[in-house]
Amino acid sequence: MKLQPALFSLVAALATNAALAYDWQALPAVAPAPADNPTTPEKVELGRMLYFDPRFSQTGTVSCNSCHNLMLGGDDNRPVSMGVHGKTGGRSAPTVWNSAFASSQFWDGRAATLEEQAKGPVANPVEMGMSDVENAMDRVRAIPGYKPYFVAAFGEKDPLTVDNAAKAVAAFERTMITPDSPYDRFVKGDKSALSEQQQRGMQTFAELGCVSCHSGAAFSGPSMPAGSGFFMKFPTFADSKYVKQYDLTKDKGRYDVTGKEADMRLFKVPTLRNIALTAPYFHNGAVKTLDEAVKVMASTQLNKTLSDAQVEDLVAFLNGLTGEFPEQTMPRLPATPGWAIGD
Amino acid sequence: MKLQPALFSLVAALATNAALAYDWQALPAVAPAPADNPTTPEKVELGRMLYFDPRFSQTGTVSCNSCHNLMLGGDDNRPVSMGVHGKTGGRSAPTVWNSAFASSQFWDGRAATLEEQAKGPVANPVEMGMSDVENAMDRVRAIPGYKPYFVAAFGEKDPLTVDNAAKAVAAFERTMITPDSPYDRFVKGDKSALSEQQQRGMQTFAELGCVSCHSGAAFSGPSMPAGSGFFMKFPTFADSKYVKQYDLTKDKGRYDVTGKEADMRLFKVPTLRNIALTAPYFHNGAVKTLDEAVKVMASTQLNKTLSDAQVEDLVAFLNGLTGEFPEQTMPRLPATPGWAIGD
Repeated sequence: MKLQPALFSLVAALATNAALAYDWQALPAVAPAPADNPTTPEKVELGRMLYFDPRFSQTGTVSCNSCHNLMLGGDDNRPVSMGVHGKTGGRSAPTVWNSAFASSQFWDGRAATLEEQAKGPVANPVEMGMSDVENAMDRVRAIPGYKPYFVAAFGEKDPLTVDNAAKAVAAFERTMITPDSPYDRFVKGDKSALSEQQQRGMQTFAELGCVSCHSGAAFSGPSMPAGSGFFMKFPTFADSKYVKQYDLTKDKGRYDVTGKEADMRLFKVPTLRNIALTAPYFHNGAVKTLDEAVKVMASTQLNKTLSDAQVEDLVAFLNGLTGEFPEQTMPRLPATPGWAIGD
Repeated sequence: MKLQPALFSLVAALATNAALAYDWQALPAVAPAPADNPTTPEKVELGRMLYFDPRFSQTGTVSCNSCHNLMLGGDDNRPVSMGVHGKTGGRSAPTVWNSAFASSQFWDGRAATLEEQAKGPVANPVEMGMSDVENAMDRVRAIPGYKPYFVAAFGEKDPLTVDNAAKAVAAFERTMITPDSPYDRFVKGDKSALSEQQQRGMQTFAELGCVSCHSGAAFSGPSMPAGSGFFMKFPTFADSKYVKQYDLTKDKGRYDVTGKEADMRLFKVPTLRNIALTAPYFHNGAVKTLDEAVKVMASTQLNKTLSDAQVEDLVAFLNGLTGEFPEQTMPRLPATPGWAIGD
């Protein structure tokens, strides 16, 4: 179908207005915290220590930061992560930056909260490889220098629990957010914060329909009650040429969690914040570059083939989602005498 | 032989005087730097980034800090370290803290300088596992964000070299020193900095002859010209019961570097600074506790069996060698688009 030029202009104008009218949100300066785990400086300090401490993995070599590297884009730049003994899992590590804004955790949303998520990798045989999370907690308890930090964060009464350790890590992660990207400054009124190309990309992002999934302040979908999550079928258009090329149907996504046919190949919609820093892309880390990832998304999710100019504009816009990273002091981890981590 | 009480007192007094007369040295606040690599803030900043960046290992999972963890005692608390693919070497990671004061590097002294040392683990198949160090440097060059830091540290002309990277890491390591331990404060005149027990241990340390090897400000022997190193045969008394128990003759030490019979089982005398934090002990990491390590040393190196009180005093003294760790800002590592580290 070919639109009359006048009608085309009208449609384009409406689309543009729609894009401009879209509710572009800046990232809040503070992440929300659940009622039962308010963020306190004491928890954040303890959580930072636990986050960087490799001694709670079987080999003493893998910490949260190993795969979710806060000195980088919050991931590890590997297709799939590598845990103890060089073992690899099937999915690419999602960024920890701004994970506080997600309404569920893991690619398949199997954890409702950051607190719940924090316990998962510890006892995963291809991640930190402990036999169970209590076993890891025994290692924390064996380091006397940790106790004062647990007491400060959780009080005198039985503070050294798995739940408290997870709360501390989650509280810390809620401070790992990256506001003040060029995009954020733009939507707050600084019209010079995004280049013209980036602004075109922003409009294209809305017009194409990317925002129907990548909405909200973190570009990861609407805020949902904790745990309900925001999932989308990937790939939606299974006859896209990219599906075979990047082996996109192998992973059954949320189906493996629920066993429901309706959840087949549903994945959590990931944040696009700092996406320029977190190559390679997708749940299987099969795509190295952001421009290729944009093409794959348009094809598999929107059944569209983009022009080179559209891809370039979109990538320019996505680069505008790289935020300011908070300066962090490196934790000092308490030692323990008589310690040896082996196999 | 039983000494007459009066004579015993005289001998004890002489020994005490000898101990007090020993040249106890405080750790300098600044480490010496070689003429061709003066320490500058720009090199230190770059060196810190490289030190913490895991992307120059084959798998993208192992950085200098993985085995020489600056958030801990500068090592990994493992008997022997674990590199890429869960591979292990034959020796325990020495602490990086105060390594600037050693006159050679590695347990067998095979590197004369920190600059030379820094290149070793990169291409070691059981450590960072790159095929060669130039190959690792290609990865640095592939990260555009590193270039400005190399230019700032080394100037515009061909700054992105292996030698410069090693110089930067070495410059950073020269700032990783821990002065102001209780011992340092004590020898500078604060007589309350060490407890009475610690002072007894200090005296015992000198009287027994520990200082004949563990001398100098870092308790790692006298300052030598770079590369000449200060080595000692370990075990010296091979019929000690501990030799078999901890398999202390298996490793041929410096012999494996030089092939000279005179170097058989010679090892670098390691620093005792922060020794309370760096269990397990010895080149093979076979001994978990500091009190056992003290007994082993007395037996294998001095042919002496210590009383429980002597061991306790010595351990108390050694705990007084734990210094103040400089507060560090976590580096932000430059990302690169289109990056994927795999196998």
